[in-house]
Amino acid sequence: MTKKELLYEGKAKRLFTTDEPNLLIAEFKDDLTAFNGEKHSQEAGKGALNNKISTELFKLLENAGIPTHFVDRPDDNHMVVKKVDIILIEVVVRNIATGSLSKRLGIEDGTKLPFTLVEFYYKRDDLGDPIINDEHCLILDLIKSESDLEELKRLGREINTILKAFFAKKGLNLVDFKVEFGYDSEGNILLADEISPDSCRFWDMETNEKLDKDRFRQGLGNVKVAYEEVLKRILGEDK
Amino acid sequence: MTKKELLYEGKAKRLFTTDEPNLLIAEFKDDLTAFNGEKHSQEAGKGALNNKISTELFKLLENAGIPTHFVDRPDDNHMVVKKVDIILIEVVVRNIATGSLSKRLGIEDGTKLPFTLVEFYYKRDDLGDPIINDEHCLILDLIKSESDLEELKRLGREINTILKAFFAKKGLNLVDFKVEFGYDSEGNILLADEISPDSCRFWDMETNEKLDKDRFRQGLGNVKVAYEEVLKRILGEDK
Ligand SMILES: Nc1ncnc2c1ncn2[C@@H]1O[C@H](COP(=O)(O)OP(=O)(O)OP(=O)(O)O)[C@@H](O)[C@H]1O
Ligand SMILES: Nc1ncnc2c1ncn2[C@@H]1O[C@H](COP(=O)(O)OP(=O)(O)OP(=O)(O)O)[C@@H](O)[C@H]1O
Ligand SMILES: [Mg+2]
Ligand SMILES: [Mg+2]
Repeated sequence: MTKKELLYEGKAKRLFTTDEPNLLIAEFKDDLTAFNGEKHSQEAGKGALNNKISTELFKLLENAGIPTHFVDRPDDNHMVVKKVDIILIEVVVRNIATGSLSKRLGIEDGTKLPFTLVEFYYKRDDLGDPIINDEHCLILDLIKSESDLEELKRLGREINTILKAFFAKKGLNLVDFKVEFGYDSEGNILLADEISPDSCRFWDMETNEKLDKDRFRQGLGNVKVAYEEVLKRILGEDK
Repeated sequence: MTKKELLYEGKAKRLFTTDEPNLLIAEFKDDLTAFNGEKHSQEAGKGALNNKISTELFKLLENAGIPTHFVDRPDDNHMVVKKVDIILIEVVVRNIATGSLSKRLGIEDGTKLPFTLVEFYYKRDDLGDPIINDEHCLILDLIKSESDLEELKRLGREINTILKAFFAKKGLNLVDFKVEFGYDSEGNILLADEISPDSCRFWDMETNEKLDKDRFRQGLGNVKVAYEEVLKRILGEDK
């Protein structure tokens, strides 16, 4: 499988076409961005770490019955994925209030939510990815039907249940995460993009140390060390 | 019925207790504010106009089966209302995209929406009244149950159906509006607060002229003339 044309260059990945019309190659870059691209940096090895972490989590989720775009990880920085039409809804799932949720709604940072919260954000960098409700998704024609919207919520919660339990056994608290979905050529909804410390928040269960992109956002340092620690936990023994 | 103690002074109204524990007197002020209080002005007679307009619309809605807090309009600037525990959710109902919706989601100003949109905003001036979804309402404990939340949506849509048809007969396009609800002493949900050109957008059907608070927000002038025109249409013959 070789890269043909560059289809899209994003902030964290490059997408290439392949000889197979239904397959793409994603190249994981070492770039780190935050605050809608305002803060930018590079961290050698970050791309490979996110590729490996995403691969492990996609495999875990597939085995648990979640359809994903993952096909193969041919080398350190590349992932072969099924091509999808990305649904322009970022699905954010939260167990603990922090970040923008705390600020926006005045909920104290670190508050355990009474139930798992699912939020939708309109995937539009030029608008700053605004939060939207179910009706906006339909008005903006972001999704085919109301039942597909319910399916996004169901999948978001199901992914949370699987990952939260998995990471708890590794001594990590899954605080929240963002996932993207897309329609494959047959109209099925697949989990796409990546699942990594760029898109999840992990807090160490014992020390409460942040092991995710918040280290970069908040300038805490040791970003790569944290990502390596997440991978080590994923691959290591249960606690 | 006389005013006893000042219970609350808001930007547009003062609320007073009365001898009846379940009744309040609302005094409609001449103040005009916008952008969360940043822009402020006075318009002599505006309070009386909003009181009269709200009275007419509450009566119309009551007759159409919507439970409201309205009891009486004893004089120009006062309304007697049933006391409620205000639900801290501003219910915004939209037929046409304009204002914050257009800006936030990039929908061209004036676009007719494919269906009537209902949005919830967290009534918290200190947070800038952020938009929230259904799950936030429950997490923030703003409402007693999911079914009460559905009831807010149903009431919002029903009020829209009634008012839209009424204003169409008066040559006015009901673009959008904000309503507040509360629980009365028996736990019933009542429509509360006011329904006026401060809380609705009206566009003249022939000229598209704005006849609402956007005249103040956008510095278009003739604010009071516009409010008077809305009252004239309400009281006048159908077109
Ligand atoms: N299987 C897939 N098929 C097609 N597109 C995909 C697939 N998986 C992910 N994508 C899209 O590829 C892009 C990945 O690039 P990257 O993550 O760098 O984007 P980004 O900088 O986050 O910007 P964007 O806001 O466009 O996501 C995203 O737009 C993502 O939605
Ligand atoms: N029947 C009622 N019982 C109790 N409170 C009410 C009733 N009707 C309206 N209110 C509340 O009274 C206040 C009216 O004042 P006003 O409209 O001036 O407030 P405001 O400046 O808009 O500020 P706020 O953000 O507090 O609404 C509002 O807080 C409103 O929710
Ligand atoms: Mg991305
Ligand atoms: Mg008010």
